[in-house]
Amino acid sequence: MALPMNQLGVVKRNIERADKAAVARLAALGVATIHEAMGRVGLMKPYMRPAYASAKMCGTAVTVLLQPGDNWMMHVAAEQLQPGDVVVAACTTDNEDGFFGDLLATSFQARGAKGLIIDGGVRDVAELEKMSFPVFSRAINAKGTIKATLGSVNIPVVCAGAVVNPGDVVIADADGVVVVPSLVAAQVADAAEKRESFEGEKRAKLAAGVLGLDMYNMREPLEKAGLKYVD
Amino acid sequence: MALPMNQLGVVKRNIERADKAAVARLAALGVATIHEAMGRVGLMKPYMRPAYASAKMCGTAVTVLLQPGDNWMMHVAAEQLQPGDVVVAACTTDNEDGFFGDLLATSFQARGAKGLIIDGGVRDVAELEKMSFPVFSRAINAKGTIKATLGSVNIPVVCAGAVVNPGDVVIADADGVVVVPSLVAAQVADAAEKRESFEGEKRAKLAAGVLGLDMYNMREPLEKAGLKYVD
Amino acid sequence: MALPMNQLGVVKRNIERADKAAVARLAALGVATIHEAMGRVGLMKPYMRPAYASAKMCGTAVTVLLQPGDNWMMHVAAEQLQPGDVVVAACTTDNEDGFFGDLLATSFQARGAKGLIIDGGVRDVAELEKMSFPVFSRAINAKGTIKATLGSVNIPVVCAGAVVNPGDVVIADADGVVVVPSLVAAQVADAAEKRESFEGEKRAKLAAGVLGLDMYNMREPLEKAGLKYVD
Amino acid sequence: MALPMNQLGVVKRNIERADKAAVARLAALGVATIHEAMGRVGLMKPYMRPAYASAKMCGTAVTVLLQPGDNWMMHVAAEQLQPGDVVVAACTTDNEDGFFGDLLATSFQARGAKGLIIDGGVRDVAELEKMSFPVFSRAINAKGTIKATLGSVNIPVVCAGAVVNPGDVVIADADGVVVVPSLVAAQVADAAEKRESFEGEKRAKLAAGVLGLDMYNMREPLEKAGLKYVD
Amino acid sequence: MALPMNQLGVVKRNIERADKAAVARLAALGVATIHEAMGRVGLMKPYMRPAYASAKMCGTAVTVLLQPGDNWMMHVAAEQLQPGDVVVAACTTDNEDGFFGDLLATSFQARGAKGLIIDGGVRDVAELEKMSFPVFSRAINAKGTIKATLGSVNIPVVCAGAVVNPGDVVIADADGVVVVPSLVAAQVADAAEKRESFEGEKRAKLAAGVLGLDMYNMREPLEKAGLKYVD
Amino acid sequence: MALPMNQLGVVKRNIERADKAAVARLAALGVATIHEAMGRVGLMKPYMRPAYASAKMCGTAVTVLLQPGDNWMMHVAAEQLQPGDVVVAACTTDNEDGFFGDLLATSFQARGAKGLIIDGGVRDVAELEKMSFPVFSRAINAKGTIKATLGSVNIPVVCAGAVVNPGDVVIADADGVVVVPSLVAAQVADAAEKRESFEGEKRAKLAAGVLGLDMYNMREPLEKAGLKYVD
Repeated sequence: MALPMNQLGVVKRNIERADKAAVARLAALGVATIHEAMGRVGLMKPYMRPAYASAKMCGTAVTVLLQPGDNWMMHVAAEQLQPGDVVVAACTTDNEDGFFGDLLATSFQARGAKGLIIDGGVRDVAELEKMSFPVFSRAINAKGTIKATLGSVNIPVVCAGAVVNPGDVVIADADGVVVVPSLVAAQVADAAEKRESFEGEKRAKLAAGVLGLDMYNMREPLEKAGLKYVD
Repeated sequence: MALPMNQLGVVKRNIERADKAAVARLAALGVATIHEAMGRVGLMKPYMRPAYASAKMCGTAVTVLLQPGDNWMMHVAAEQLQPGDVVVAACTTDNEDGFFGDLLATSFQARGAKGLIIDGGVRDVAELEKMSFPVFSRAINAKGTIKATLGSVNIPVVCAGAVVNPGDVVIADADGVVVVPSLVAAQVADAAEKRESFEGEKRAKLAAGVLGLDMYNMREPLEKAGLKYVD
Repeated sequence: MALPMNQLGVVKRNIERADKAAVARLAALGVATIHEAMGRVGLMKPYMRPAYASAKMCGTAVTVLLQPGDNWMMHVAAEQLQPGDVVVAACTTDNEDGFFGDLLATSFQARGAKGLIIDGGVRDVAELEKMSFPVFSRAINAKGTIKATLGSVNIPVVCAGAVVNPGDVVIADADGVVVVPSLVAAQVADAAEKRESFEGEKRAKLAAGVLGLDMYNMREPLEKAGLKYVD
Repeated sequence: MALPMNQLGVVKRNIERADKAAVARLAALGVATIHEAMGRVGLMKPYMRPAYASAKMCGTAVTVLLQPGDNWMMHVAAEQLQPGDVVVAACTTDNEDGFFGDLLATSFQARGAKGLIIDGGVRDVAELEKMSFPVFSRAINAKGTIKATLGSVNIPVVCAGAVVNPGDVVIADADGVVVVPSLVAAQVADAAEKRESFEGEKRAKLAAGVLGLDMYNMREPLEKAGLKYVD
Repeated sequence: MALPMNQLGVVKRNIERADKAAVARLAALGVATIHEAMGRVGLMKPYMRPAYASAKMCGTAVTVLLQPGDNWMMHVAAEQLQPGDVVVAACTTDNEDGFFGDLLATSFQARGAKGLIIDGGVRDVAELEKMSFPVFSRAINAKGTIKATLGSVNIPVVCAGAVVNPGDVVIADADGVVVVPSLVAAQVADAAEKRESFEGEKRAKLAAGVLGLDMYNMREPLEKAGLKYVD
Repeated sequence: MALPMNQLGVVKRNIERADKAAVARLAALGVATIHEAMGRVGLMKPYMRPAYASAKMCGTAVTVLLQPGDNWMMHVAAEQLQPGDVVVAACTTDNEDGFFGDLLATSFQARGAKGLIIDGGVRDVAELEKMSFPVFSRAINAKGTIKATLGSVNIPVVCAGAVVNPGDVVIADADGVVVVPSLVAAQVADAAEKRESFEGEKRAKLAAGVLGLDMYNMREPLEKAGLKYVD
C-alpha cells in the first residue's frame, strides 16, 4: 500500500469484494480462531468494543477516512454500500465524537450493510440495539458532527491499528475485530475451520481432567527451560 | 460564574429549580437530541457511564463539591434534596474512590431523588440496580471514603467537563449526560421536540433507500469541495 | 515478603490455603463490605472488570506470574489447582494479550477452580459465559500467546496493585476484587458479618427518611469544621 | 455563568480585564502558592504541561472555544488581543490536533500576548522556544487544522477542568496552570503574598532540623487520631 | 499492502530505498511542514516522543515487527542496515518493555543507522543521549526482553498508527514522526519546500501586526458563516 | 508479607536498613543493569518519571502509606529518616494530588534523605531542582493536600506496582525505579557489577561492526525457529 499524496477527497467506486462463500464461512467462526489461523495478524486494538452487548457482524469492508468532528464522508459511503458490506471508518486523528447515529444506521441498513466498525464515537446506542444494527467503536458519545471537510471512501485505511483495504473481510464478536485480506479469505477460512475442528477433541480431554502439560507434552521442555518444583 | 475565593464550606439552601413542566418534557427526549438542540454545548465527557446497563434519569441538579477520598458532603446534600432532584457530584481533583453506595442511595431515594451523576467512583452497583437507583459515574470502585473535609453543596461546579449550576436540568441516558441551564429549559425542550419531530420523516425516507446525499442535497457542495469519484 | 532474586522458574506445590469455613463465610459477603472490614486494604485497582456481567467468585488463590505474550505458566498452574481455588495471574509487565480462553477454562473448571483473576487480557468471553466460568481481567483481547518463557506458580505476586500470596482468599463481584490474607480470613469474616448486620438497621432508618446527618451525629462536627448555610 | 443556547458564533469585544497591578503581583508568585491562597480552586488538570521546559506566563485571559480539528477562531481571537493577554483555548470535545504553530505565535506576540494555554495540541515547538512564546498544552502534535466551523471568542469556557471567564488572570509555571477570577485578583494576591511571607521562616526552621511534627504541633492530634509507634 | 497470511518469520533483504537526494532535502524540513505538504497523511500518533530532548532524525526505513517482550528481531534487523537507514519497530500488540538499549544502539550506529522509531519502550536513555543516537518511543522502561519468538524484518508495518513500508522516508523532530512513501519522496520535498518558502513572507507580515483575518481574507467567510460581534 | 488487618495508623521505628556498602555499590550502577541482575523483578511501572531531567538517587527505603489528598504521614515519616534514606510513598488509591513540595523537601534534606519516590503528585518542582532534591513521581500537580487521616510509616507497601519493604534499596535514574530487597543487596550488587563488566567488551565488538547475530550465536537458533530470508 504505497500511500499516495493527496489521498483525501477520493471515492473509489469499484472495489474487489472478498468471495461471498469465504465470507459466509468466516461468519460462522470466532474472531480469536480466525486471528490464530491467520498467523496472528490483522487484529484491531482491544479498545474497540461493541456498542451493545450482543453486537457481532461479518462482511466486506467499505472503508471511510473521516476528519475529526465531521461525518460528511459517511453519507458518501452510504451510496457505495452493497448488501453484505460492513463500513469501516477510520479518522485522520484520535477523535471520539459521535460520528454515527440511528439515521445513518437506517440508511446503511436499507442498503444492506451488516454493521459498522469505527475508530471514533457513536450515539443513539439504544436505538441501534433496537434496530439490531451492530456497531463496534472506541467510544459512545452524544456529541454530533458537522459536514464540511473531505475525507475519502474506499482507500486503504488504518483503523484501530489494523490495515483495512476495501473488500477485505471484517469479523467482529465479543472478543474484538479482525480483518482478513480478501485475497486470502478462503485460505484463512480453511485454516480456521481446521483449527476449530481440533478444538472439540482437546476440549473433551481437558474436561475429562487431562492436563495441558500432558496433552501438549510440555513437561520436558519446561524442565529443559529450568522449571523447578519446590515444596 | 465568578468563582469566589473560599468557596469551600458553603451550603446554599434556596436554589432556583428549573420549571417542572420543562423538566418533564426533557425527560421524554434523548441526550443526543437535547445536546443538538442546545447548539452542542453542555455535554459531559464520554467517560461518564451508567453503573448498570438500563440506568437513565432526568431531574434538577443539587450540586456537590467533594474532596478526594471524602464523601462527607454527600450527607449534607441529602438534606437539600427535593423530589425530582438529581445529585451532581464533582471533586476538587481526579479521584475514583467509591464515594457512594447503597446506604446513601437509600437516603437519596427516600428524599425523592431521581439519581446520581458523579465524577468519581461508586460501589454496591448490584444493589443500586435492584433498587432502581440510576447512577452515572467515571468508575466502579469498592474503596470507601472518610468524612473529614468540607466541600460545598449547591455551588456551581465543573463535573466531567461541564458546568452545572444548582437547579439546572440534567438528563442521562445510554448516550451520556447533558446539562440544560434552568433558564433555557423550556426553550431547549421546544427546540429538541421540533428536532425530533423532523426525524421520523427523515428516518422513513432513509429506510426506503433514499440517500442522505440526496435528502440533504450534498452532491453539489461535495463536488465544489473537490470530491473525485474514480473507478 | 522478601522478594528473592531469581524468583522466576519456580513452582511451589504445597501452599497453605485459607480455612474453608472462612472462605465460605466470605463468599456470602460483598467485596465492598469485606474491604471495609479489613481496614481498607487489599483491593485491586478498579480497572479489573468482569468479562461478562454476572461474573463473581470466591476462592483460595493459586498465583501465577506470567511473562508478556506468554501463557505457558497457566498450564503449569492447572496441575496445582484444587477444588475451590481461584487462579490469580499477574504479569512481569503491563500486557493485555489474551492469555486465557475456553480451553484453559475447561481445564481449570475440570480441576475444580472457581474462576480467574488476571492482570491481562482474556478471550472466548462468550464461551466463558456459557460455561459459567467467571473471569475478572483488565482487557478482552483475541490475541493469543506463546509458550516459551518461564514464570512462576505460587509465589507472592502483585496483581492489579494488590499483593496476593498463595492460599489467600480472593473475592470478586460487581464492585471489584479484594484479597484477604489467609491468616486473617476468619477474623475478617467476623468483622464483615458484624458490619453487615448493622447495615440493615441503618438502611431501614434512611429509607424512613432519617438523614445521615442525624443518624451519624454529623451536625456538630460539620459546624465545628466551619460549614456555613446560606440562602 | 448561565450557559445560553447558541453560544457558538459569538465574539465579545469588550471584556473587563483584571487590574494590571494585581496581575503584576500575581506574576511574581508561584502557581502552587496562588492556588492555596484561593482556597484550592481554579486549578487546571495536571495533564496541561509546558511545550518547552522553561515556559511560564501570567496574563489576562482572552478565551476561545474551538471545534475539533479547526483553528479558525484563533485568528478571530488575535484581533481581540491586547498587550498582557494570555489566550486560553478550550475545545468542544477532547482533541489533540495541532491547532497552533509558529505563525499564529508570531501574530499573537506581535499583538502583545504573553502566551497560550490550550486544551489541545500545538506544533512548531522548537520555534516557539526560540521565539520565547510560552505555551501550555495537553499534547504536541504536528497535525494541522482547517478553518471551517464557528466557535466563539471571549465567552466563559471550561479549559482542562477549570472555568475561565474573559479577563481572568491566568498563571502558568512548572507546577501547572491556575485561574484567578478578575474580581478577586487583588484579594488573592494579598493572600498569596502573605502566605509566601510565612514560608521563609518555616523553611529556615525545617532546614535547621525542626520537624513539621513540632512546628505544626501535630503530635497531639496524631495521637488522638490513634497513631501507634511500634519497634 | 495485501497482508499475506504467515507474515511472521520473514526477512526481506532487498528493499527499494527512497532516493538519497530526496531524503537529504526532507532532512532539512520540519515534520509539521512535511505532513502538511503530503496532504496531512502519514503522521504517527502524538504519544511517540523523543527519548531525550534534542533527538531528531531523517532516514530510510528498515522495518521490524516485534513480539511483546522479545527483541530478537532487532538483532536480525541490524544486519539489514545500510548507512542512512532508520529502524522502525512495530509490535504485534501494545507493549512498553525496554526492547532497545545502548548495546543495540552501538551496533546500529556502527552500521550507519540514523536512529530508531519504536512503538514500544527503550532503556539506557542517558547513554543514548551521550552517544547521540536519537530514539522516538512510546515509553522509557528498564525492563529487558527475551530472544525467543520470530517476528519479521522489512515487511510493511503499522507503527503508532502509521503504515510504514521498508525504504520509506521517516522524519522525526520535536513535533513528532512522519512517514513519506519512497515513491513520492521527491514530490513531497518539492511541495514542502514550496510551502516553507511562503512562510517567511507570512511570518514577516504577521510580525508587523497584520492580522490573519486580513492576510487570509477571512472576514467575509466568517460573516457568511454567521459570526457575530457583540460588545 | 502477610498483610495484617488494620495496618493503618502504625509507625515502625526500628527498621533493618540494607548494608551501607551494598547501597554504595548499587548507587554506582544503572537501574536497567540492576533489574537484569535481579532476574527482572522489582521494577516500578514506567509512569514513574523524574520531576526534573537530571534527577537520580539511591538509598534505603523509609516507606509511607498515604491517604488520597492527605500528606499527614509525610511529616510523621520525616522523623524516621536517617542519612542515606529515600522516602517511598504509596497511596491507598490512585491519586495525583501534590503531596509534596519544597518545605517537606527542606525537612527531608535536613534529615539526610537522598530523595523521594512517590506514586502520586508533587509540586514546587522548580525549587526541588534548585535544591537538588531528586523526586520521581507519577504527576506534577500544584494541588495541595490536607492533614486529617492516618496512614502508616515503615510498613510494606506496593508503590507503582512494586513491593517495597522498609530498608530495601531503591535506585532511580533516567530509566526508572528499581527496588532491591535488603537481604539480597550485596548479592545483587555482585551480579550487576559482573554483568556490567561484560558489557564493555560487547560494546567494543558491536562498535567494531560485529553483529549481535554472530556475537550471540543467534543464526542457528533463528534458522531452527524457521526464519526465512527472501529477496
